[in-house]
Amino acid sequence: MIKVTVIGSGNLAHHFIEVFHTSPGIEIQQVFSRNHTVSIPELLPHQIVTSYDALTMADVYLICVSDDAIAEVSQSLPFDHRLVVHTSGAMPLTTLDKKNKRGVFYPLQTFTKGKKVDFTTIPLCIETESEKEYPILETLAKTISTKVYAIHSEQRKALHLAAVFVNNFTNYLYQIGQEICEEHQIPFEILQPLILETAQKIQTLTPSQAQTGPAKRNDTHTIMAHQKLLTQEHQRTIYNILTQSIQNHGKKL
Amino acid sequence: MIKVTVIGSGNLAHHFIEVFHTSPGIEIQQVFSRNHTVSIPELLPHQIVTSYDALTMADVYLICVSDDAIAEVSQSLPFDHRLVVHTSGAMPLTTLDKKNKRGVFYPLQTFTKGKKVDFTTIPLCIETESEKEYPILETLAKTISTKVYAIHSEQRKALHLAAVFVNNFTNYLYQIGQEICEEHQIPFEILQPLILETAQKIQTLTPSQAQTGPAKRNDTHTIMAHQKLLTQEHQRTIYNILTQSIQNHGKKL
Repeated sequence: MIKVTVIGSGNLAHHFIEVFHTSPGIEIQQVFSRNHTVSIPELLPHQIVTSYDALTMADVYLICVSDDAIAEVSQSLPFDHRLVVHTSGAMPLTTLDKKNKRGVFYPLQTFTKGKKVDFTTIPLCIETESEKEYPILETLAKTISTKVYAIHSEQRKALHLAAVFVNNFTNYLYQIGQEICEEHQIPFEILQPLILETAQKIQTLTPSQAQTGPAKRNDTHTIMAHQKLLTQEHQRTIYNILTQSIQNHGKKL
Repeated sequence: MIKVTVIGSGNLAHHFIEVFHTSPGIEIQQVFSRNHTVSIPELLPHQIVTSYDALTMADVYLICVSDDAIAEVSQSLPFDHRLVVHTSGAMPLTTLDKKNKRGVFYPLQTFTKGKKVDFTTIPLCIETESEKEYPILETLAKTISTKVYAIHSEQRKALHLAAVFVNNFTNYLYQIGQEICEEHQIPFEILQPLILETAQKIQTLTPSQAQTGPAKRNDTHTIMAHQKLLTQEHQRTIYNILTQSIQNHGKKL
């Protein structure tokens, strides 16, 4: 039985509490929340603590706070030589105070408040400072997910950057799609199945195999028609840059 | 019973033949293919014709050829006053020769060769030159899909442009994600669940509600770290443009 204490009570903390609660082999020892009024249906009231001094012994302390707060929270822990891990994609392991054994437990997924998550398919990127602690973090990870990867801090930084492209930036392209629809009185829902299929394609094809469209075909007639149709400066800039990149990419291959 | 003749034997033609074949209320009259050797398991050999003169009477002639060939094919049809529709997102209705009654039957989806398609969820954007022909095209569309929209040529042009953003350009962002993974010896499969969830989110949230990330948060520390990490010029350019657009968009709201 791995005893886990979750530090934090935000969106990610709640998702972890939910999955730990139902996973055999994992026991939630405590949850630390600065917010006195937080209620967590999975826990008994005495398991929720609001002061660092009330933290008892656990096998893993999982810090689920904003990137900026990780250093301070890890310094505030009133114990040492225990396994303390953060859950951030952007911060190195060394953000954590070195008085404890350090690690990272990063779920590469976008979490929506209130939307239940199937953790079994979420990639967990784990790292420990010393090899000795790796197995317990690996066991914890494999209890909730089938996709566990050893990813060191430099790789995780790159992965987080890649995630910005495929998640944040992709969502922004959806936003532009919606703007164009609105301008022409077209319901955005028409694009939803295409958006889903585009993502599903990439589960079996490589992005290069899946690439289609006027830029890929060097269809200058359609590209010029599109450029004329774009009324907003930011849309036109993004259209041109991405079109050029796809065209140049084709040349390089 | 609506009798449909499909002109063309490419990827899209095959997907239509497959769904028409299994739809009650639709009969495939003929398939026209320039390619003599094409074999279509759903059809009897005599239903496949290779000469325009062999085309018999049908209720709808569905032109499934490349954009550039639509005009020529429609001119080559040796009859007039019948309902002839093309299936392109980019071309206006008037691309078709006016000797026939004209329409458009545009499925807004990305089709993969060999991958079976569930047409019931694919938006079909339809248009006819005269109101009189609209009902038959609508009936045909509603027989295979639950999502049928009346979209005129100007709107369809905008829709096609929006599709380039959410499909072609999004796929190119997946490509950059893969490049970053490769450079850092990270398997691309780690990003696949995130890609899928990003698309799934947009089925219930608006793009604006779903937008997250360092640009949205104005997290300049992370943005600068990302810029330093990007080694390729095209990646850096795209990163900067999209980051700025997301930041400016926030200000406008």
